[in-house]
Amino acid sequence: MSNQVPLREAPVDQPVTLINAFTVPLHESDRFLGRWKDNARIMAGQPGFIRARMYKSLVEDAELRFINMAEWSSGEALAKARANPEFLTSVRRLMDDPELHVTPRPAIYQVAVEVHPGDML
Amino acid sequence: MSNQVPLREAPVDQPVTLINAFTVPLHESDRFLGRWKDNARIMAGQPGFIRARMYKSLVEDAELRFINMAEWSSGEALAKARANPEFLTSVRRLMDDPELHVTPRPAIYQVAVEVHPGDML
Repeated sequence: MSNQVPLREAPVDQPVTLINAFTVPLHESDRFLGRWKDNARIMAGQPGFIRARMYKSLVEDAELRFINMAEWSSGEALAKARANPEFLTSVRRLMDDPELHVTPRPAIYQVAVEVHPGDML
Repeated sequence: MSNQVPLREAPVDQPVTLINAFTVPLHESDRFLGRWKDNARIMAGQPGFIRARMYKSLVEDAELRFINMAEWSSGEALAKARANPEFLTSVRRLMDDPELHVTPRPAIYQVAVEVHPGDML
């Protein structure tokens, strides 16, 4: 349910990255990913969506098995997309699925440090 | 300390992403970032390092205040870099700093799904 908690402090007019780290039981991975794709398809059709990548841990007992990084053109665009009724229904379908036991940890991020080979920082 | 736990199941010859989500008390953010930059400078000098981005949450009470995404050319390159003595010393300096209370969650990931605008998935 915390996927639907309002995400505060998103700057309205700057690019932001929504990062959502999910705890998912190993045997629910495929079902989770299928449901998540339903959400992602809706997000991919919203104004301001730039790109998302869902990362999967190669470690079987990882606490954070899936991590989604979704880039948006602005905090405002992300806020509007998250309020989309079709998206909310899709998120609810994932969170209410009795065969899934998922803990999401969504928050809004910006890049604090970018590092390239040989950087002296 | 779990930053130094061996990371299993990294495919030797494929690109991988090390993602490390850190819980950090809000008032320790600057000190943490300074120590982390020391680590990152060492990693940025290792063979196979492609890019790292440290993301900072815009939400003050975020459980995962900092998330580092570091791309490596292969699991083998990452494993060698993580065994570098200078790097291990630098990580220890961060984790043993009595003024820092940091929980790292490092794991190795690969992209499971990439989503672009309008993708039907």
